[in-house]
Amino acid sequence: MGESFGAYRIGRDEDILSYVSSANIACGFHAGDPGVMRRTVRLCLDRGVSIGAHPGLPDLAGFGRREIRITASEAYELTVYQIGALQAFVRAEGGVMRHVKPHGALYNMAAADPALADAIACAVQRVDPALILYGLAGSELIRAAARIGLRAAAEAFADRAYRPDGTLAPRSQSGAVIADAAQAAQQAVRIAQTQSVTAIDGRDIAIAADTLCIHGDTPDALEFASRIRQELERSGIDIRPVS
Amino acid sequence: MGESFGAYRIGRDEDILSYVSSANIACGFHAGDPGVMRRTVRLCLDRGVSIGAHPGLPDLAGFGRREIRITASEAYELTVYQIGALQAFVRAEGGVMRHVKPHGALYNMAAADPALADAIACAVQRVDPALILYGLAGSELIRAAARIGLRAAAEAFADRAYRPDGTLAPRSQSGAVIADAAQAAQQAVRIAQTQSVTAIDGRDIAIAADTLCIHGDTPDALEFASRIRQELERSGIDIRPVS
Amino acid sequence: MGESFGAYRIGRDEDILSYVSSANIACGFHAGDPGVMRRTVRLCLDRGVSIGAHPGLPDLAGFGRREIRITASEAYELTVYQIGALQAFVRAEGGVMRHVKPHGALYNMAAADPALADAIACAVQRVDPALILYGLAGSELIRAAARIGLRAAAEAFADRAYRPDGTLAPRSQSGAVIADAAQAAQQAVRIAQTQSVTAIDGRDIAIAADTLCIHGDTPDALEFASRIRQELERSGIDIRPVS
Amino acid sequence: MGESFGAYRIGRDEDILSYVSSANIACGFHAGDPGVMRRTVRLCLDRGVSIGAHPGLPDLAGFGRREIRITASEAYELTVYQIGALQAFVRAEGGVMRHVKPHGALYNMAAADPALADAIACAVQRVDPALILYGLAGSELIRAAARIGLRAAAEAFADRAYRPDGTLAPRSQSGAVIADAAQAAQQAVRIAQTQSVTAIDGRDIAIAADTLCIHGDTPDALEFASRIRQELERSGIDIRPVS
Repeated sequence: MGESFGAYRIGRDEDILSYVSSANIACGFHAGDPGVMRRTVRLCLDRGVSIGAHPGLPDLAGFGRREIRITASEAYELTVYQIGALQAFVRAEGGVMRHVKPHGALYNMAAADPALADAIACAVQRVDPALILYGLAGSELIRAAARIGLRAAAEAFADRAYRPDGTLAPRSQSGAVIADAAQAAQQAVRIAQTQSVTAIDGRDIAIAADTLCIHGDTPDALEFASRIRQELERSGIDIRPVS
Repeated sequence: MGESFGAYRIGRDEDILSYVSSANIACGFHAGDPGVMRRTVRLCLDRGVSIGAHPGLPDLAGFGRREIRITASEAYELTVYQIGALQAFVRAEGGVMRHVKPHGALYNMAAADPALADAIACAVQRVDPALILYGLAGSELIRAAARIGLRAAAEAFADRAYRPDGTLAPRSQSGAVIADAAQAAQQAVRIAQTQSVTAIDGRDIAIAADTLCIHGDTPDALEFASRIRQELERSGIDIRPVS
Repeated sequence: MGESFGAYRIGRDEDILSYVSSANIACGFHAGDPGVMRRTVRLCLDRGVSIGAHPGLPDLAGFGRREIRITASEAYELTVYQIGALQAFVRAEGGVMRHVKPHGALYNMAAADPALADAIACAVQRVDPALILYGLAGSELIRAAARIGLRAAAEAFADRAYRPDGTLAPRSQSGAVIADAAQAAQQAVRIAQTQSVTAIDGRDIAIAADTLCIHGDTPDALEFASRIRQELERSGIDIRPVS
Repeated sequence: MGESFGAYRIGRDEDILSYVSSANIACGFHAGDPGVMRRTVRLCLDRGVSIGAHPGLPDLAGFGRREIRITASEAYELTVYQIGALQAFVRAEGGVMRHVKPHGALYNMAAADPALADAIACAVQRVDPALILYGLAGSELIRAAARIGLRAAAEAFADRAYRPDGTLAPRSQSGAVIADAAQAAQQAVRIAQTQSVTAIDGRDIAIAADTLCIHGDTPDALEFASRIRQELERSGIDIRPVS
């Protein structure tokens, strides 16, 4: 959410908000700007959607999706900076920031690299120990939070294929992105009901998921969000913020 | 303080800290970066120097000294963003942020423009009503804080010449900057003792000052800071943070 | 043209190109990035549209529309830099860059400020004396080019209201922007045929125009471009690049 | 050279220029800005030092030293952009740009990655086929230039230790950087006279070098530059630009 910048618009944030219980708001490094952050925070509070910071790599040109070889110290520092910036907007609007989810390449790097994961978990805890850290289910981020007693929420993806080891198949791999909304909704329900999923090689694997991630910046984001919510509700699954 | 950036170093922050009671720390827009912010905050806490945010215009190339025609909304938003970012570092290090002082062109624009001043004062108050807003003595920033019941500290300058109306003579004017440390120290003592100063045209004017500003990024910053502190102490003036 | 940036899209460049004889391509300061510049240059060459550089202020967040108080030296330098960057892409694709048009606030500031206008004209001439400088008809930019013997093209606007002194009514003024495509097309034809226009106060004024500017980044850009071209052609006016 | 930025100063460019025959000038992505580029180009022309562009990754905060996973297209585009920008300043000052040397992480990545190397070589050739591409001796950059018939200059380093395969020992390895000016000067003379060097494991290896790289941004840059030049001249080696 909140990934517009200056004169540039991305995402149909207002529409997507009808389908989610929590939003990750960009903090100005990979996307977003102070004006967009303010308006997005306001919008979430008005709609009762729980707010989290979505800190990313300092790479607006690459939308935070290009790996940058940063040190653990740099990861700590850019996380503190960005969650502080967003938290100020949430406070100014009278709300409370609930969670932090690293964005894009930072999320993926931290999922695999314990030093980066520790740095990010530590940043979150030192700014506000009540925050919940969102990370890929089974990843280093989740382990890093556990090591320091920080609450974490394990994320699963409705629209991404999994490898047998529980990591996401890289976007470059054929079939890595689930292009069909019905199929994504089906995967969402399966994860929610059984905490398992069929990996890209056909094997069933366990996914200990606390939350499902929906993208807001793709052309068919709205269709996916709507369909996934509809199927979850039809299956009797209650959608609410992690707490 | 904290105006270094990446591989670039500006200012002798460690040395200057011996002579001041409060520090204004750059927040990454006109200068500073997350790593510099973290280290500068740590340094201030270790040395018992009171910490304030120094939000500036988004203009690293111009060091925040070039006027940018921003709207009042943009001023509000960039102030919230930057003070939030710094506050997170102060919290992460176990300290408390005490004040906010706009930087450079933002400071000067807000001194003269009530709408910008209101926006900045409002930003400070909404993020944390306990913060003190530093502004030029007699300026719109001081009035804006008063209008909303936000505490403010009126700043005077030891090393700048005043115009008869109490504003600073622009740097482009001959004699605007006091180049002699002894003369600056003398002006500092006079302001502290008598709340008055001799303007550039020879007239005596009143300056209702709560705090004295010392620059940290000039070649002779250390000499000025040391001399001013020495003369203030010799005159029996106690130097301590605004509270 | 070419005002997209990274993951952000603005403008329907491909469609607009059917209606214009020359394109001003953003150079990465107010908008555009190296990849967008390369693709836009290629597109213009494929479509036989004459290419110009569109240097702007270093303000992606403000899309180059906020005045920044830069010095004449800074105006010279950022113009040299940006036209060099675009010229390299044009050369790499086997084409020739023909003109330079400052963008947004830089264009407006240079229209009124002789020192900025001289700096920009000088930058253009020193990089390539065969380039043509586009500026507002009757503005300082046109005079600055004349002073150093640089060829200039005086621009008129189909969709903007004029003040009696030949300057554009500021966007903040009611009626400053002509919202009706038919009316804009009518103004275009009138300027082309009679070199005059009815100012916002009803008076007829002379506009010595060599070229008509069409915007590419507004929602109805395509409708305006199409209608203006249609009416110009219906009136027997031949549309071709300045030379 | 030219790695200052805005209010920030790095390097003693004027002094270093006395000791070198060619200079690599930063182009605004990893360091440098349009004003610095203009002044550095002027300085080189005044001192008769041959000028090359020093394009880097878009990472001012990391000084271009952090790897960013860019695509070959992005490498092509950022190289075209930056060499065009510098070339414009060289032209505006009446000079001719002679070579291109990628900077920092871009240089290292392109040394090892044929696709990035090809993209950079292609960018150089398409902007100006008379340019000479500088790359690490024996690296992919040198091979990429050879593949397309672009002239290249193989670089050796006086102050860096080599691995047995001819690559540089990474800075993280102990002994990778030669801290003693006399030893660096000795290595410089040996490379120039015998086209060989003793690798970090004690073995002698061949280094087919056309040019020696001297750093300008380290604290003892001047001492190294002076000593290396002195020893080369004492050994009867003539120092002149690659041509």
